Amino acid sequence: MIRSTNRVLTAELRNHVGQTVEVSGWLHRRRDLKNVTFLILRDRAGLAQVVTSPTGSERYTEESVVTVRGTATANTHAPGGVEITSPEIRVLSAPVAPPPFDLYRPTVQAGLPTILDNADVTLRHPLLNAPHRLSAASVAGFRETLSRLGFTEIHTPKVVSSATESGANVFAIDWFGREAYLAQSPQFFKQAMVGVFERVFETGPVFRAEPHDTARHLAQYTSLDAELGFITDHRDVMAVVREVVAGMAAAAANGAGEAAELLEVKFPEVPDEIPEVHFAEAMRMLGADEPDLSPAHERWLSEWALREYGSEFLFVTGYPMVKRPFYTHPQPDRPEYSNSFDLLFRGLELVTGGQRLHRYEDYTAALEQRGEPLEPYQSYLSAFAHGMPPHGGFALGLERWTTRLTGADNVRRATLFPRDLHRLTP
Amino acid sequence: MIRSTNRVLTAELRNHVGQTVEVSGWLHRRRDLKNVTFLILRDRAGLAQVVTSPTGSERYTEESVVTVRGTATANTHAPGGVEITSPEIRVLSAPVAPPPFDLYRPTVQAGLPTILDNADVTLRHPLLNAPHRLSAASVAGFRETLSRLGFTEIHTPKVVSSATESGANVFAIDWFGREAYLAQSPQFFKQAMVGVFERVFETGPVFRAEPHDTARHLAQYTSLDAELGFITDHRDVMAVVREVVAGMAAAAANGAGEAAELLEVKFPEVPDEIPEVHFAEAMRMLGADEPDLSPAHERWLSEWALREYGSEFLFVTGYPMVKRPFYTHPQPDRPEYSNSFDLLFRGLELVTGGQRLHRYEDYTAALEQRGEPLEPYQSYLSAFAHGMPPHGGFALGLERWTTRLTGADNVRRATLFPRDLHRLTP
Repeated sequence: MIRSTNRVLTAELRNHVGQTVEVSGWLHRRRDLKNVTFLILRDRAGLAQVVTSPTGSERYTEESVVTVRGTATANTHAPGGVEITSPEIRVLSAPVAPPPFDLYRPTVQAGLPTILDNADVTLRHPLLNAPHRLSAASVAGFRETLSRLGFTEIHTPKVVSSATESGANVFAIDWFGREAYLAQSPQFFKQAMVGVFERVFETGPVFRAEPHDTARHLAQYTSLDAELGFITDHRDVMAVVREVVAGMAAAAANGAGEAAELLEVKFPEVPDEIPEVHFAEAMRMLGADEPDLSPAHERWLSEWALREYGSEFLFVTGYPMVKRPFYTHPQPDRPEYSNSFDLLFRGLELVTGGQRLHRYEDYTAALEQRGEPLEPYQSYLSAFAHGMPPHGGFALGLERWTTRLTGADNVRRATLFPRDLHRLTP
Repeated sequence: MIRSTNRVLTAELRNHVGQTVEVSGWLHRRRDLKNVTFLILRDRAGLAQVVTSPTGSERYTEESVVTVRGTATANTHAPGGVEITSPEIRVLSAPVAPPPFDLYRPTVQAGLPTILDNADVTLRHPLLNAPHRLSAASVAGFRETLSRLGFTEIHTPKVVSSATESGANVFAIDWFGREAYLAQSPQFFKQAMVGVFERVFETGPVFRAEPHDTARHLAQYTSLDAELGFITDHRDVMAVVREVVAGMAAAAANGAGEAAELLEVKFPEVPDEIPEVHFAEAMRMLGADEPDLSPAHERWLSEWALREYGSEFLFVTGYPMVKRPFYTHPQPDRPEYSNSFDLLFRGLELVTGGQRLHRYEDYTAALEQRGEPLEPYQSYLSAFAHGMPPHGGFALGLERWTTRLTGADNVRRATLFPRDLHRLTP
């Protein structure tokens, strides 16, 4: 049994007017007036005002951790309409250093390096932890949606023996004296597990040793991966992506409503059918002739979809085979294109996915055609030697999702402790 | 919208008797009799029997992926009471190699190395994937329980700059030319996040470079971590552990009932109050005088708790400070012991947890007392410099949980693709 405690959360105070209550939290702010001191207490549910005497109140420094026992008293001027009067205040621990900026101010003026260098304390600012509350609720929505659709959660190795998936951008590890690598994705494992569970998902870290120093690249991020068998083609995967994105938006709105309000999040409407455009048609519209979309192209296409269909989401399908990994399934009637897709959300690629090859002989032919040796892929190919159904899947970057949702200027604002080219602490 | 398909899962066939149906899956087994061939089809929901003519049926090799269209016909002798007659069979892909053993046999005779070396195909055996279905359902129960209790999910770095938590047993990484390490636990991050969210959890991989070659050690495992603030002492953490374990057992029973039945899992009853014994008292009972429990001690104590309290769970509290990490909170009235605990489940340590230090000066004193320099801990200590509440938490090894639940002889049977001293593929 959870032990009963007398603690009341700030958000529940309104149910205790006239009673003696005990609240606990951080001293968010102290305001000394001539005859009275207001202490604003912050807990995981919100803020509450405590009214006390100025005498001796200088020991209540901001960010002290306190328990306050007093009377819950109605006051329309107090936050939430209730304040605590006649308080007894007990300091549980006092800070030995001030935060790098005042956490009680409604806006944050500090730059990103200051915020990230001091994440353990700066994330206490309601505006700065709100994205992470939205992330947490969104991941729950991802899992709920896929569980409802019959997917099984898996946990796969983050250390692999060969750097097969995309070449050079891997981190090397000393694994008991052998060279190994951090996994760039659970791609091969999730495909093999389609042979076991048919439908699988994983939510976990992936690692990219890409020396990009941009507002949208991280060297570790949280990849929301899914893979499913017995599809007709990539459109069956896109249908699941649509459900997932709708489920994540709904879960974020329901589960992190206050965080959303604080950040003035405009939740997207997810159309029943997300509009789609083929890569070749996109290039025609863009008046371009390239094998991949540039960030500017993605923004233009997103604006076009909003204008044309009123949709903040757009599937771009049929990316050229030359720009997709070797396991990509070609488009049967135009084999220079692929049964793949990206989902653009508010101008940025959010999801990448598609149909994969499923026959052993198609894999060996694809590797041969790309001039790659079979040997490093043996353990990957094994699943296909034993009979695999037509299948496909996708990966969604959690931090990118939250960044787009909140309109943040940098993916690091949606990452508790980012890891990148320069950042390895805190 | 999820596109409609004609596919019916094997478990749903009984609702379609007399109708034309389409099922898809793997050919689990082919049995040729003189005048008839029985094909057993396996999909994610179970098995179904297809009745066809022996003529030409030799091309239906086991593990072929097929779609079968035919009539759902009641037959009390068929699995599930329904079979498919007058089938049209389409092979979607054919295996190019046989599995290392017959997947259709009711028991598995193969040894663990064969199973693990060929995991992508051997896990298709219902007995071998059942533990993983139980794992998936258990993790869902972990998250549901903690979400209900107001915990926020976090995602923390798996790469850290210093090997601070437990010394030598870390994997080194080349991080853009700098030396870094794989995280052994999210310990420091989850503690810091108590300062932000009060209650947090994470389900993710951790890495231990321990050169142990045993049936219960893995170099990567899935750690289910939680941490909460505003506790009185470690007993508040134990109360949460009790809820979590009960939630995991219930979720596994509800969400993976068939897997449990197949493995004849006996779910534990989780007492409202899990019995506990202090470490000093345990040593007295064991007639021993050591600073830690041996595996034999743990088994003896588990049996004692079962005998004495009818409980398959036992908390051992108060482990000596000398055997606990520096951030452990001492037991106030007997400071050579600690406010910590292990939870034993069926003879094995399943959970480790306790109350942590929360005052900055207690941390610096603890490190000084252990003769450790402060410098590598600066970024960890920062959270405590800014005011932290009394807090504590725990970690539960998912694979160990599943191993105990299923009575498996090796933790690798509860790991899809184990990583250890010797194993880095598949």
